[in-house]
Amino acid sequence: MPFKQFLDRIVSFTSNAPPEKVPEADESIHEDLPIGKKQNEEHACPSYTTLKFNFRDIGRMNAIIETLGRDFLTAMPTGAYKSRLGHIAYLYRRMHEDLTSSEMRDLINKAQDHEYKNPDDWDKWDKANLHEMAQMYRMYCCISPELIEKKARLSYEGRRHHSALKKTGDWGEAKKFLTEQIDLHRRIAEARCETFGEDSHYQMLMQEYMPSMTTRRVEEIFTDYKGTLDDLLPKILKKQDKQPAPIPLTAEYEQEAQMWLNRSLLRVIGFDFKRGGLYETGHNPVEGGTPEDTRLVISNVDEANFMTSMKSALHEGGHGLYIQGLPRKEWRYQPVAMDLGAVVHESQALLIEMIIGRMMEFYEFLSPRLEGLFHGINAPALSPENLFALKNHVKPTVDRKKADEVTYFYHILMRFELERDLIEGRLEVDKLPEAWVERTHTYLGVYPDNHLEGCLQDVHWFVGKFGYFPSYVLGHMLAAQFFYAMKKEFSDIGADITNGNFNDIRAWLHKHIYAKGRLMSMDDLVKDATGEKFTSSYLEKHLRARYL
Amino acid sequence: MPFKQFLDRIVSFTSNAPPEKVPEADESIHEDLPIGKKQNEEHACPSYTTLKFNFRDIGRMNAIIETLGRDFLTAMPTGAYKSRLGHIAYLYRRMHEDLTSSEMRDLINKAQDHEYKNPDDWDKWDKANLHEMAQMYRMYCCISPELIEKKARLSYEGRRHHSALKKTGDWGEAKKFLTEQIDLHRRIAEARCETFGEDSHYQMLMQEYMPSMTTRRVEEIFTDYKGTLDDLLPKILKKQDKQPAPIPLTAEYEQEAQMWLNRSLLRVIGFDFKRGGLYETGHNPVEGGTPEDTRLVISNVDEANFMTSMKSALHEGGHGLYIQGLPRKEWRYQPVAMDLGAVVHESQALLIEMIIGRMMEFYEFLSPRLEGLFHGINAPALSPENLFALKNHVKPTVDRKKADEVTYFYHILMRFELERDLIEGRLEVDKLPEAWVERTHTYLGVYPDNHLEGCLQDVHWFVGKFGYFPSYVLGHMLAAQFFYAMKKEFSDIGADITNGNFNDIRAWLHKHIYAKGRLMSMDDLVKDATGEKFTSSYLEKHLRARYL
Repeated sequence: MPFKQFLDRIVSFTSNAPPEKVPEADESIHEDLPIGKKQNEEHACPSYTTLKFNFRDIGRMNAIIETLGRDFLTAMPTGAYKSRLGHIAYLYRRMHEDLTSSEMRDLINKAQDHEYKNPDDWDKWDKANLHEMAQMYRMYCCISPELIEKKARLSYEGRRHHSALKKTGDWGEAKKFLTEQIDLHRRIAEARCETFGEDSHYQMLMQEYMPSMTTRRVEEIFTDYKGTLDDLLPKILKKQDKQPAPIPLTAEYEQEAQMWLNRSLLRVIGFDFKRGGLYETGHNPVEGGTPEDTRLVISNVDEANFMTSMKSALHEGGHGLYIQGLPRKEWRYQPVAMDLGAVVHESQALLIEMIIGRMMEFYEFLSPRLEGLFHGINAPALSPENLFALKNHVKPTVDRKKADEVTYFYHILMRFELERDLIEGRLEVDKLPEAWVERTHTYLGVYPDNHLEGCLQDVHWFVGKFGYFPSYVLGHMLAAQFFYAMKKEFSDIGADITNGNFNDIRAWLHKHIYAKGRLMSMDDLVKDATGEKFTSSYLEKHLRARYL
Repeated sequence: MPFKQFLDRIVSFTSNAPPEKVPEADESIHEDLPIGKKQNEEHACPSYTTLKFNFRDIGRMNAIIETLGRDFLTAMPTGAYKSRLGHIAYLYRRMHEDLTSSEMRDLINKAQDHEYKNPDDWDKWDKANLHEMAQMYRMYCCISPELIEKKARLSYEGRRHHSALKKTGDWGEAKKFLTEQIDLHRRIAEARCETFGEDSHYQMLMQEYMPSMTTRRVEEIFTDYKGTLDDLLPKILKKQDKQPAPIPLTAEYEQEAQMWLNRSLLRVIGFDFKRGGLYETGHNPVEGGTPEDTRLVISNVDEANFMTSMKSALHEGGHGLYIQGLPRKEWRYQPVAMDLGAVVHESQALLIEMIIGRMMEFYEFLSPRLEGLFHGINAPALSPENLFALKNHVKPTVDRKKADEVTYFYHILMRFELERDLIEGRLEVDKLPEAWVERTHTYLGVYPDNHLEGCLQDVHWFVGKFGYFPSYVLGHMLAAQFFYAMKKEFSDIGADITNGNFNDIRAWLHKHIYAKGRLMSMDDLVKDATGEKFTSSYLEKHLRARYL
């Protein structure tokens, strides 16, 4: 497709439209609004009908928190920091009180009873919905509102702490705060262990992000995959050594042009800007939003390298497509309309960012447009081959965010081991920097120069996200598995990507993943979508195909 | 002050800083955070201590609604319209349920009892705070949560309806919606009439904006002032006729430059951008925000006339200074820290916009800077005298928003009469367009050409703000009264304004108005601040001085 046509196609979105302006009320969106059928429908079980309304309100509070959080990252005046913290923590407490009230417990018990006695009144969506309600209740009923409020506060304070630490690299300061976070999360995990009769503290935290995942299963998958990769990596490096080094990007890539490109790419892959947007933030970005309001945020762009912000935009775009595709019309705010957790969420992000967004075909699509946008006709650095080589260059480093697709696993493996041990009490916070350096060297063969290159590089633990890291690798595996399943169905997927045509890909993802919400467990969904159980073998296959 | 100095002074704020970027976490704001003394302090009356915590949470919900509302006006994707409506209405309902709970009633009764028996335990702030709590309870206890939820929904829907009507001017559509709004508000007023044993439906709505104002008092003030103005206006027009017509603005005034100017002016008058901002909106702007997060919104700028957006910015800036100055450190979220209602609020806006912002001294300050900013050295249209003549030109028109300072009153008078009659059931909605045209001609001597120039021009009734209009005139009167009181204290106020020095003005307003919150009634505050009762005589004096 010539550049002109490409521009025509995406010209309707201009990157320099000032975001403070909102278009006039648009009547056409009426047709796009939720129909509100299933979630408001009366059910044969009156308790369940009431539950649906109660959970609608919990969903609303959640959505409000999302809006406050987006605003926090993008437009909030700095002086509102502390009061905003209070607002968010307050809403979490209210939501928690509502969720874990005795009224809720009675309703759930009655509804479960009704389902047991009158199975014909319950279709699979209602069943899954009730199951999720009960699961949410169980996850939270054992935790006091004070702990929840504290968790919310520490999460936002941690974001701020981490921002400050990125300037000072002061481990003493970090340690104080991390100790508080870990203590809090161990208390939460302990309460859950008692309720669920489980031993693994870590698992109780991890399941907040990956509902059915166990610590042991992660250990098994990671051990197995490590064996594969330990064998693969030297071969990849050896092959790569024989190739010429890629040409580095040296021009200046204007902020506005980059954001125009990022937004345009999101539009091309199918992100709906009527229900969302893409913004830069001075904070660490967070994925999130709701199907009606999916505002994606990425870090402020780096004018020396457009591929950094593009990578983030594609990653967040993958998350965003998933969120926008959830069953909002029939099941808005209901638990069954939620995403399936971090593994599936990251699979969607990494499918777009790493699997598709680094294919030669994608760079073939991108390259001529980049030449036009960044004024470099036939610039060697912008050729598809060079873009491919730049982005798929494998090199062990200390920095997770800059890691390549192959060595990324080792970053996650060590974080998984460390956070598990921190939460299980097998590693003292005091010993973290040391343990970090040691594992970085063991797994990646390099040494960080300082704490900032070491255990202070990620925001996750500061915001209390213990148990999230494994989802990046599990999601990567799943992304590869989904992609191979798609390829079986659409033989010309490569040609489509070269043409910037994502219709088939989007339709497949929508049908098999987005539209399912939480209708089934992740394992069932994977089987349903790909015909196979969850497996790491497609990621191996993908790496072999791309790098060997 | 030379232009360079002026620029240096305000250069730290640049209008094209993209609002989606937020500066890195700023440690220095810690010192600026609320101390949280009085509002968290234990009181001799335990019920009152509990009330303070309960009202803190109500204040938080209010603040959250403000944030959702600001976001709605500035950054929200259009597709989130309906769900956002649900969020806001839901929070209103929750807030209402909390406020009017039987627990709240018992606590208020116990606290009032304690105050009566132990007057020495209650300082004047605590007394005023409890009084406001009881007053809020009374205003809302008689209204069902369903009515409140409906009011919130109709308010936002009305905003949308009005936007659509501005394109079509379709009275049939408007009538349907207005009828619904009026019915709803009559039901609310009726419930309050019963509770307070009052007759005037209209008054019950008006008091939501102007706590102690009565319909009769407004009628008296307006009748009296109309007499004055009927006499004054012909003289003003006669004098004006003898003067040469002002030179119209004909250049193009770039959007970015205008917003830079507007933000710079707000900075100069003392608005704190760490705790707020100024944005454009495609909707009708709404005043509001909280002391920690005062995001002002104005309509999208008109590149043909910078004075339009400047007028709005100064107006909203006056509101914003008041909000930011409220006693947030000691009394954050407490009823006593609220503003004193619409009359005082509008007085602050109109003091900046109309009284100070149209003084010759202000234009002397502005003129050389405009010449630099808009590239027109010695441009005759930008001379202080011409700016003064342009903005203070008196001419009866059909459009309230374009009305001059003198004839503005007649616009408000007719709206007051019409809305009073609509709510009291003395005017059918059907007859509104006719009545509008008739009064426009009676009071202003002109005829609107169509409904858009007629009864569809304002958003107020569409969003359910019945009883708000009088505050514009009462606020104008009060602004003049405050200004004359200030002038008595600071003899060189004109010279200060010419120099862009607003320190004395701000200090006076802070001491006498902002910092008082709701410590006393409006009437007491006026007496305290000016040494006199509320009076329209200073507005008359001001008009005579400026126009005769």
